[in-house]
Amino acid sequence: MSFAFRVTHTEGAARRGVMSTAHGDVETPAFMPVGTQGAVKAVTHRDLEAMGAEILLCNTYHLYLRPGDELIARRGGLHRFIGWSKPILTDSGGYQVFSLAARRTIDEEGARFQSHLDGSPHLLTPEKAADIQANLGSDVAMVLDECLAHPSEHAAARASMGRTLRWAKRARDRFLEIRDATNPGQAQFGIVQGSVFPDLREESAQRTVEIGFEAYAIGGLSVGEPVDTMYEMVERTTPCLPADRPRYLMGTGTPEDLVESVARGIDLFDCVLPTRNARNGQLFTSEGRINIKNARYAEDDRPPDPACDCYTCRTCSRAYLRHLFASGEINAATLNTLHNLHFYLDTLRRIRESLTFGRFEKFRLSFHRSLSRQLHDP
Amino acid sequence: MSFAFRVTHTEGAARRGVMSTAHGDVETPAFMPVGTQGAVKAVTHRDLEAMGAEILLCNTYHLYLRPGDELIARRGGLHRFIGWSKPILTDSGGYQVFSLAARRTIDEEGARFQSHLDGSPHLLTPEKAADIQANLGSDVAMVLDECLAHPSEHAAARASMGRTLRWAKRARDRFLEIRDATNPGQAQFGIVQGSVFPDLREESAQRTVEIGFEAYAIGGLSVGEPVDTMYEMVERTTPCLPADRPRYLMGTGTPEDLVESVARGIDLFDCVLPTRNARNGQLFTSEGRINIKNARYAEDDRPPDPACDCYTCRTCSRAYLRHLFASGEINAATLNTLHNLHFYLDTLRRIRESLTFGRFEKFRLSFHRSLSRQLHDP
Repeated sequence: MSFAFRVTHTEGAARRGVMSTAHGDVETPAFMPVGTQGAVKAVTHRDLEAMGAEILLCNTYHLYLRPGDELIARRGGLHRFIGWSKPILTDSGGYQVFSLAARRTIDEEGARFQSHLDGSPHLLTPEKAADIQANLGSDVAMVLDECLAHPSEHAAARASMGRTLRWAKRARDRFLEIRDATNPGQAQFGIVQGSVFPDLREESAQRTVEIGFEAYAIGGLSVGEPVDTMYEMVERTTPCLPADRPRYLMGTGTPEDLVESVARGIDLFDCVLPTRNARNGQLFTSEGRINIKNARYAEDDRPPDPACDCYTCRTCSRAYLRHLFASGEINAATLNTLHNLHFYLDTLRRIRESLTFGRFEKFRLSFHRSLSRQLHDP
Repeated sequence: MSFAFRVTHTEGAARRGVMSTAHGDVETPAFMPVGTQGAVKAVTHRDLEAMGAEILLCNTYHLYLRPGDELIARRGGLHRFIGWSKPILTDSGGYQVFSLAARRTIDEEGARFQSHLDGSPHLLTPEKAADIQANLGSDVAMVLDECLAHPSEHAAARASMGRTLRWAKRARDRFLEIRDATNPGQAQFGIVQGSVFPDLREESAQRTVEIGFEAYAIGGLSVGEPVDTMYEMVERTTPCLPADRPRYLMGTGTPEDLVESVARGIDLFDCVLPTRNARNGQLFTSEGRINIKNARYAEDDRPPDPACDCYTCRTCSRAYLRHLFASGEINAATLNTLHNLHFYLDTLRRIRESLTFGRFEKFRLSFHRSLSRQLHDP
C-alpha cells in the first residue's frame, strides 16, 4: 500500500483524518511514542498496542550506530527486527548528530561526527540518511536538515534554511532514485525550518513544497523559544503547507502544546516528554502534573489520576508508586510510563472525537479551564 | 478462610496438592516469584498472573525498613498496598539481616543491626518478626531463624540449631497470641536448620514439629554446599516432616534443583535466580542456558526458546533481545524476566501434570536427558 492522507473532519484550522501507510492506517491527529533504539523505554509493544498507539518513531542515528542499519536490513527491516507490525516513522539522524555526537563539523556535503558510543568517525549526508532509512524500511522517512542553535540571528537562520533546502533536494533525489527498488511504500517528509522568523518560515515552507514530498514537518521548534513564539511559528507555517497532506510538528510537546498545535492545523506529534518524565517520577494527570517522589504521596491511597482508566491507575495507589520509585524498582518506570503515554494518547483520542462532532473548540476551552485550576508539584 | 493443605497425587516421595490460604489456593509443587520490595523486579502483577503465578514471596526486612510495616498496615495490609489479591508469603527478615545489614550482632534476644539504607539501628527478635508480618498481613509468615555461615563445624551448627528452636518457640507463642486479633487466616511456618549434618537436620525437624506449625520449611541450604549435599539434606529431612503439611525449600534453585527436590518430597520453592539472571542477560531455555549478550546472537532470528510460548518468545528474536540488552534498554530486563519466570512456572506446571498421570519419574528422566545434551553459554 502506498502513502495517502484523507481529511475527514475540520473545525477552523484543526482537522481530523486518516494517514495510510505501507503498514496500515493512523488516525490523526496522532501522537507517536518515541522508540529511540527500536523500543519505547520501559514498556513493551503489547502495552503500546493496548493503549492505542498506531505509529512509533525510531531514531536513525541510534539504530545506524547500533546494531547498524545493514544488520537490520538483513533481519528483514526494522518492523521485523523489533516485532512491531504497525507504522514506523524514522527521523533523519540529524537532530541527534547535533545534540549527542562528539566533534561534529557541518559543511555543504553533510555532517561529520564521532559516535557517542565508541568515537568512530562518520559522515551523514542527505543521501546517506535516505539510504539508512531505506535499509530500516520505515513507513515514513525524514530528510536530513540542519538543526540551528536557538537563539540565532536572521542572517544565520536564512543561511541555514538555504542549506536545509539544498539538502532536502538532494535527499528527495536519492529517495526517488532508490525507493522503488527498496521500499515502494515508503514516504518521505520534508522539513520546514526558519527559526523564529515568520518570513523565513513562510519561505522555507513554500520552497520545501516546491521540491515536493509526501508530507511536511515543522522542525526547529521546542528548542527553547517562548511557547507563544512556537505557536506563532506554527500558525504562520501551516497555511503555507498543502491542506491535503499531513503536517508533523517535530519534538513537541506538553499536552497543552498538542491541543494548541492541533488548533493551528497540526496532525502528527512526537515527544520524549511523557516517557522521560515518567522515568523521573513526573506524571501527567487530569488534575495537573504530580511528582510521585513527593513525601505528600507516602500515604495517598488514590490512583495517580482518578479520571484515568489505564492499568497503573486501575491497580496502583500513589503511595505504592512512590514506594516503588523510592525503592529504585524497575517497574516504577514501567508503571509511570504506561500512565503518561496513556494520558497523551487519550488526549489525542479526545481531540479526534471532539473534531468528529464539531466540538473541538469546546474541548479546547474546557481543557485550558481545567489546566488553570491545577496545582503543579515542584 | 484458614490455612489447609491437601495432597491429591503421590509418586514415590513426590506429591501434588493444593495449599489453601486466606487469599486463595495454590497448586503445589509451586514456585514463588520473589517480590522483594512488594514488586517482582521488571514485571507487573498482571504479567505474573498471566503466566500463572499463584503466590508471591515478599521480604520482611525490606518492607519493614521501607516504606515500613506500620505504613503498610495503615494502607490495609500488603495485599491492598501492592494491589496483589492472591496469596503472599513473607520471610522473617532474618536472611537479609545476615546478608545485607551492617554491623549486626546476634544474641539470645535477637539480631541487632543497622539499616543498609540509612544506618539506623534496629533489633529484630522472633516476636518482632511475627509482629511485622502481622502488620503486613501475609498469608504465610515465617519464623525468625539464625542463618549460619557455610561451612560450619558440627558444634557450631548444633548451637545455632538450638537457638533457632528457642526462637521458633518464642515466635510461635507470639503468633498464637496475636493471630486472632490481627490476621485470623495467617499461617506460620517453622524452619528446619542443621547445616549439612544429617543428625542435626533430623533433630531440628523433629523438635520444630514438636513446637507445631501450620507447615515447615527447610532453611540453610543453597548457601554454597555441593548440590548433592543439598539433595541429601532434603532427602533426610522430608521424612521427618508431617506428610499432610506442605514442605518449603527456601531459596532454591536451578530448574534441575526443583525437579530433584520435588522427587524428595518438596512442595514450595522460591528463588531469585530466574529474575536476577534475567536482568544479567541469562535465559533459561529448554535447550540450555543462553547468555543473550554473546556476539553469536547478533544475527540470530530464532526466539530465545523455540519450545516456549511466552510473550518474549512469541515476539522477540535473540538478535533483538541482544540489541536491547547491549543498548541498556529497560525492557531488556522486562522481556528476559517474563521469559525466565515463565520457564520456571511452566516447569512446575509440567511437574504437576506429570504427577497427575503418574508420569513424574518419566518426566524427571527426560528432563535430565535433555539437560545432559545441552550446551551452556559462558
